[in-house]
Amino acid sequence: MKIGLAQYDPAIGAFKHNVVHMIRLAGKAREEGCELIIFPELAVCGYPPLDLLERREFIQENLRAADRLMSEVKGIAVLYGCVSLNTRGAGKPIHNTAILFEDGKVLAEVHKRLLPSYDIFDEARYFEPGTGSTPVNFKGLSIGVTICEDIWNDSVVFSERHYSVNPVAELAEKGADVFITINSSPFDIEKAAFRYHVLSRLAAKYRRPFFYINAVGGQDCLIFDGGSMAVDVTGEIIAQAKDFAEDLVTVDTDTRQGEKHTISVSKEEAVVKALKLGLKDYTDRCGFNKAILGLSGGIDSSLTAAVAAQAIGPANVLGVIMPSPYTSETSIEDAEALARNLGIRTIVTPISGIFDSYLQTLETVFEGKGRDVTEENIQARIRGNLLMAISNKFGHLVLSTGNKSELAVGYCTLYGDLSGGFALISDLPKTMVYKVAGYLNSEKEIIPRRVLTKPPSAELRPGQKDRDYLPPYDILDAILEKYLEQNTPPDRIIAEGFNPDTVYRIIQMVDRSEYKRHQVPMGPRVTTRAFGYGRRYPVCHGYRRQAENIG
Amino acid sequence: MKIGLAQYDPAIGAFKHNVVHMIRLAGKAREEGCELIIFPELAVCGYPPLDLLERREFIQENLRAADRLMSEVKGIAVLYGCVSLNTRGAGKPIHNTAILFEDGKVLAEVHKRLLPSYDIFDEARYFEPGTGSTPVNFKGLSIGVTICEDIWNDSVVFSERHYSVNPVAELAEKGADVFITINSSPFDIEKAAFRYHVLSRLAAKYRRPFFYINAVGGQDCLIFDGGSMAVDVTGEIIAQAKDFAEDLVTVDTDTRQGEKHTISVSKEEAVVKALKLGLKDYTDRCGFNKAILGLSGGIDSSLTAAVAAQAIGPANVLGVIMPSPYTSETSIEDAEALARNLGIRTIVTPISGIFDSYLQTLETVFEGKGRDVTEENIQARIRGNLLMAISNKFGHLVLSTGNKSELAVGYCTLYGDLSGGFALISDLPKTMVYKVAGYLNSEKEIIPRRVLTKPPSAELRPGQKDRDYLPPYDILDAILEKYLEQNTPPDRIIAEGFNPDTVYRIIQMVDRSEYKRHQVPMGPRVTTRAFGYGRRYPVCHGYRRQAENIG
Repeated sequence: MKIGLAQYDPAIGAFKHNVVHMIRLAGKAREEGCELIIFPELAVCGYPPLDLLERREFIQENLRAADRLMSEVKGIAVLYGCVSLNTRGAGKPIHNTAILFEDGKVLAEVHKRLLPSYDIFDEARYFEPGTGSTPVNFKGLSIGVTICEDIWNDSVVFSERHYSVNPVAELAEKGADVFITINSSPFDIEKAAFRYHVLSRLAAKYRRPFFYINAVGGQDCLIFDGGSMAVDVTGEIIAQAKDFAEDLVTVDTDTRQGEKHTISVSKEEAVVKALKLGLKDYTDRCGFNKAILGLSGGIDSSLTAAVAAQAIGPANVLGVIMPSPYTSETSIEDAEALARNLGIRTIVTPISGIFDSYLQTLETVFEGKGRDVTEENIQARIRGNLLMAISNKFGHLVLSTGNKSELAVGYCTLYGDLSGGFALISDLPKTMVYKVAGYLNSEKEIIPRRVLTKPPSAELRPGQKDRDYLPPYDILDAILEKYLEQNTPPDRIIAEGFNPDTVYRIIQMVDRSEYKRHQVPMGPRVTTRAFGYGRRYPVCHGYRRQAENIG
Repeated sequence: MKIGLAQYDPAIGAFKHNVVHMIRLAGKAREEGCELIIFPELAVCGYPPLDLLERREFIQENLRAADRLMSEVKGIAVLYGCVSLNTRGAGKPIHNTAILFEDGKVLAEVHKRLLPSYDIFDEARYFEPGTGSTPVNFKGLSIGVTICEDIWNDSVVFSERHYSVNPVAELAEKGADVFITINSSPFDIEKAAFRYHVLSRLAAKYRRPFFYINAVGGQDCLIFDGGSMAVDVTGEIIAQAKDFAEDLVTVDTDTRQGEKHTISVSKEEAVVKALKLGLKDYTDRCGFNKAILGLSGGIDSSLTAAVAAQAIGPANVLGVIMPSPYTSETSIEDAEALARNLGIRTIVTPISGIFDSYLQTLETVFEGKGRDVTEENIQARIRGNLLMAISNKFGHLVLSTGNKSELAVGYCTLYGDLSGGFALISDLPKTMVYKVAGYLNSEKEIIPRRVLTKPPSAELRPGQKDRDYLPPYDILDAILEKYLEQNTPPDRIIAEGFNPDTVYRIIQMVDRSEYKRHQVPMGPRVTTRAFGYGRRYPVCHGYRRQAENIG
């Protein structure tokens, strides 16, 4: 049987748009000779709808959309994800469901059993889990239908198992010939390799091919990277959809032959595609077509501008150069050179006059106090206010330009450089910022070379350099990755050879800047653990580490 | 048997502080003749620790603190909540546990079974549920030990049941004589009445008394209101702890007599106490002892200042009056009168000079464009920058002063009036702001009377009044309560007699300002559903209501 893997980009709650799109794709697959088309998890309503799932009217519209899909698709069977009602009288009111229908008749309904509730996932908040797994028989094939997390609990891959049941083992035992798994699985930089690892290990263990369909698109801080595939029992990839784009690939379940499209070959390539997709979908869905950002001549704003220009077109990006008395000539030259390379417009609005008026207004209030970080923050906030003002006047989206390392240690100003609607590189550690910038420059110089080689500086006081405040970025990022992404306890980080003072000082900076991260714009997730929705820490707490004694 | 209900205020992760406090309270209860002292849910580590629960070192310190508690309390048994390890080899790695010990020996360990995962609760993210319920035998008494949510699923109270098991029924069936339930249950304006409703209905149904112990204190956006109590089978309250303060009350399980302390008699009294407790604990735990806020002469900043002065003392509150050309004389007079009434210091920093310098800097950029909301936002952001600057220089906590109605419809400026560390009245609808202000004025005039009677205005352009942009606040708040707190679909709100255009316009404003609420400071929860952690909506989505056709 020839099947189509329909990797598509649903918008949350855009029921009409989504269903029309699905109907069109089903028609296309039928024309290509498919007997079955498969869409991702929650294809009708998009993923994750969050608390929209608590609204009765949202669920009702989702059900009406599902009805329309079933009544309008003819001549091909459809397996897709949608929300269905829990009719058992207790538990959460809805299920996360896979539905198989053909010619207006539902052939099977499968409820997701393993509901991820960690990191960015909150499915136990909304859904009642399914209670058992039985293969679905369709045209002589016994299909093990699973939904995303359902395949993520097998001991062949996971030594620490989060759940006490394993739908894959149950389905194999009950005679499934093949596994089809529908997903809305978000991108991180390690995810594609790990997905293949899971699928190939499961295929080998159960001696069954796995057909894996993923969603694609940007949804707030999440990027769904697609990369749908079919994996044979040998581990061979027999069908492969693109990453970071809609795609429809076909594969034959008998001959085990399918279409193979190319995917990213490096992590840097994947990151650039992820950021572009995230920004494009964010602007489209929030109704923006232009973006604005401050250009400092530094690496962060340069990378942000370069990605934005590729994502929405250079004509739609406006760079604002906002020099102060502490801004070097070099910085302005670099910002202007970048803008020329990208072909984006710039305007220059010096902040000295405004800065002076703040200092004058505050003169008597601050009498007798020396200069400190206050005056640095005032400058950053003037720049934030100018960007927001231009955004308000012309309807641009403000892109904030901070990276993950800064955000982690609080080396950034609330309402200043943290202002904006979308923080494009906020989940890229500084060392990754350099790598991705290098990748963008690999064919020709887009970001002026000096931007990559000069020492980073906030230029908020004379002679200021990042290295005067922070450990070298390679050390900082290594410690942050262990602490933030792997939850490694401080003593174990130290045991790996890092300086104890440095480790505790960094952890203290991370803990103490939690309040800032509660008020920052969202940005696309790139690492295995991003700030924001997927990492929830109290702002005020009394958890004191050894840091307090050392730092 | 005489028991002590120890309603205390744990700080999250302050293990040493918490355990020392618990040991002292146990000694006090023993002196008062108690044989058993009962502490709230997660008493050792505080509630909710959020993702600190993912850190191995946090769990280990929690276990060491529990060991210390057990080794140091003598001559009285202790029932208390802490995190324990899941030793079953699958599932989440920890339990939310109640432990009963006496003289260094654990007598019982009970795992929470119903893990709330809705609103502000995320317990399925962290904990593995218990699998069965058996009464604990202690000194001849068969005790049904439950943890918080465990008693919130009985059909006598809940028509829609979130869970398929009911620990209370199981324990009653297995012969429990009394129920003891340990809690960390957060305040909202309806909660105290509802708690009594639940306890009295359960006590009557199962013909057993219920002993209910709650935590107290402010933790980020949550206020734990205490109000621990014992309820007899007749519904009579036989012991009552204070609300919004630490307390230790004793009660005899045989005679069913206990101490009764007074609690708030009105909702307004409870709200004021909640805000004061929330602010006091936030400042103490985040290391602030002074607060700063902008005084506009309006009702919101006046109420914020009045509550802050009561919470941390008038000498620790600084009011900043920041007039613009659009500020009326009346506003300045009212702000100054308020400050005199409260005994707080004020400074005056006019914003006209800074505002002019922004307009001058942006003159060529804005050429040919008329004035609009941009210039209003610039003023609001200048005020935000000034408050933050003074805060940076002197180490004050900035209190932002917006109310829930404004935040709901987006009638507020990001990085402007939304700047701050703590948004004290951000969960009070405007109509509640007036009621609470009236309550504060009931003995003597604290907030100048004119502030309560003049029409609300942002004073960001000549003659501006809230009523020119928004429906009357009584109508706005009624619609917002239905839409936000009760999740009522728009058509049902309209069916209750509200104007369809108004309903859809308000819902559209709420939906479109979601991005603002992703970047606002936290504030204490007062209503049954607050913005922030407990309400999770996507920022960009394609869910379009009829509003789009009408508004």
